[in-house]
Amino acid sequence: MATLKVPSSVPSPAEDCEQLKKAFAGWGTNEKLIIQILAHRNAAQRKLITETYAATYGEDLLKDLDSELSNDFQRVVLLWTLDPAERDAYLVNEATKRLTANNWVIMEVACTRSAFDLFRARQAYHARYKKSLEEDVAYHTTGDFRKLLVPLVSAFRYEGDEVNMMLAKSEAKLLHEKISEKAYNDEELIRILTTRSKAQLNATLNQYNNHFGNAINKDLKADTNDEYLTLLRATIKCLTCPDKYFEKTLRLAINKMGTDEWALTRVVVTRAEVDMQRIKEEYHKRNSVPLDRAIAVDTSGDYEKMLLALIGHGDA
Amino acid sequence: MATLKVPSSVPSPAEDCEQLKKAFAGWGTNEKLIIQILAHRNAAQRKLITETYAATYGEDLLKDLDSELSNDFQRVVLLWTLDPAERDAYLVNEATKRLTANNWVIMEVACTRSAFDLFRARQAYHARYKKSLEEDVAYHTTGDFRKLLVPLVSAFRYEGDEVNMMLAKSEAKLLHEKISEKAYNDEELIRILTTRSKAQLNATLNQYNNHFGNAINKDLKADTNDEYLTLLRATIKCLTCPDKYFEKTLRLAINKMGTDEWALTRVVVTRAEVDMQRIKEEYHKRNSVPLDRAIAVDTSGDYEKMLLALIGHGDA
Repeated sequence: MATLKVPSSVPSPAEDCEQLKKAFAGWGTNEKLIIQILAHRNAAQRKLITETYAATYGEDLLKDLDSELSNDFQRVVLLWTLDPAERDAYLVNEATKRLTANNWVIMEVACTRSAFDLFRARQAYHARYKKSLEEDVAYHTTGDFRKLLVPLVSAFRYEGDEVNMMLAKSEAKLLHEKISEKAYNDEELIRILTTRSKAQLNATLNQYNNHFGNAINKDLKADTNDEYLTLLRATIKCLTCPDKYFEKTLRLAINKMGTDEWALTRVVVTRAEVDMQRIKEEYHKRNSVPLDRAIAVDTSGDYEKMLLALIGHGDA
Repeated sequence: MATLKVPSSVPSPAEDCEQLKKAFAGWGTNEKLIIQILAHRNAAQRKLITETYAATYGEDLLKDLDSELSNDFQRVVLLWTLDPAERDAYLVNEATKRLTANNWVIMEVACTRSAFDLFRARQAYHARYKKSLEEDVAYHTTGDFRKLLVPLVSAFRYEGDEVNMMLAKSEAKLLHEKISEKAYNDEELIRILTTRSKAQLNATLNQYNNHFGNAINKDLKADTNDEYLTLLRATIKCLTCPDKYFEKTLRLAINKMGTDEWALTRVVVTRAEVDMQRIKEEYHKRNSVPLDRAIAVDTSGDYEKMLLALIGHGDA
């Protein structure tokens, strides 16, 4: 469930644009007004606002936001305003660049979006970067990371509920064999994780747990310093219980010395319209403190206000 | 250019359905009438006919065709009548089954369809088989074949004309190194072939030819008995000059002792609405005999008539 709050009566895109233009005008910027508008419009409404803004003023709203705002507040507003598919394309592209390389972001986008949303991100990538998403991921990764990430981003998983129990049993056995041999980059193991539907994978991992006594991620904990193994565990978590994955990502971002604002922003922005309600519940349960309070302690100013608005704090 | 001939004035789908129903009625089937209608309707028209047939008679046109027709004529009519995306899904599914396994068909579908048409086939695969296309390809292939085929069918290649010449040079060098080392299954070589746009790949292979004296496929000819190497060469051919690839496929199908009707049918049916005109020209040039004459010599009856109609012989 989403945490985004949209007012019961939404102003027209033209009115919103006029207000945004006012927020940019004169000395200083009216950040409060920007939050009041953008943090309370859904993806379709933001798209209309961006289009109307371009048609009315002949200017790019994203560019204006970029020049008016700064730092973490700038990043959260820009990422939020982007169309979700373009945002995913942007995040993956950034994650393949040398200075901002991040295999986790690539995995996260590949594993937590619906099959069609991932495809829409690949289409947006064509349009924006004149290349394919998998082409950049393949080019900028190596070794085991490439072996895992390229099929993950190229997948178009089946999304039905049908489960083949025979297959679940045989593939659970196969996974257990490979993990016992510490063959974590085995091609059969990667095939199963990168091509099976989430429902089928869930059945396979339940079989694994039933027959071999441990959850698969416990057996994969052998070597906690191995970066690939850590990513593999996160992949399984993203595919089977994304809310727990995002809770942990938020927890680590917030507890970190100096807060990981990029992770915090990314999770809030990409989940506010999807499943942030459940992530908030997971967070509260796991940390004994509500997410909004934890965010309020760790952040400040307009950045804080924007994050809190997106996770449903206060009224629209 | 297509060879399909559609009459200047097309009867309504309802009229076509009525005629088809008549062709099925009574003793014997009127094959001539079936050809006259279906072989002269484009994909959109055939789709409407199928929908109208279901709505009018509560029956499935494909099932009726299946029970009324037989042998090679049955197969060509059924494959032709299917929506192109469903047909591709069907061909790939068949090619992953034990008795009809065929890595070439999988490669051909992956490499000669547009990026979006390949995606549409993946969508049709979900709908029809309740699984993903890449899932079945990954499950039913092994070793080098899997390493090549899974990324080929999962690709969503960029289709713009932009070419990065620096990259073309460096990747041509990389390909030449790997081929010199006979590392035909090298992951960099596979990455380049499976992710780069066709325009970029073409530039890379031109650089290869310019700098190393041979066309890449000549250097790949070292070991002609190697099935994987043969498939790799065909992959490159499909990606860079599909009309030549299809000409050769037709040539081998026709020249074979006993004709390979499956290949002949597949190429005619899948290319008649795309580029069969160019394939015919290639065929004539390479074999000094027009394709329609070669087909007429090797096939007979309604099967022959259907093939000839699809490659543009006679009037609509």
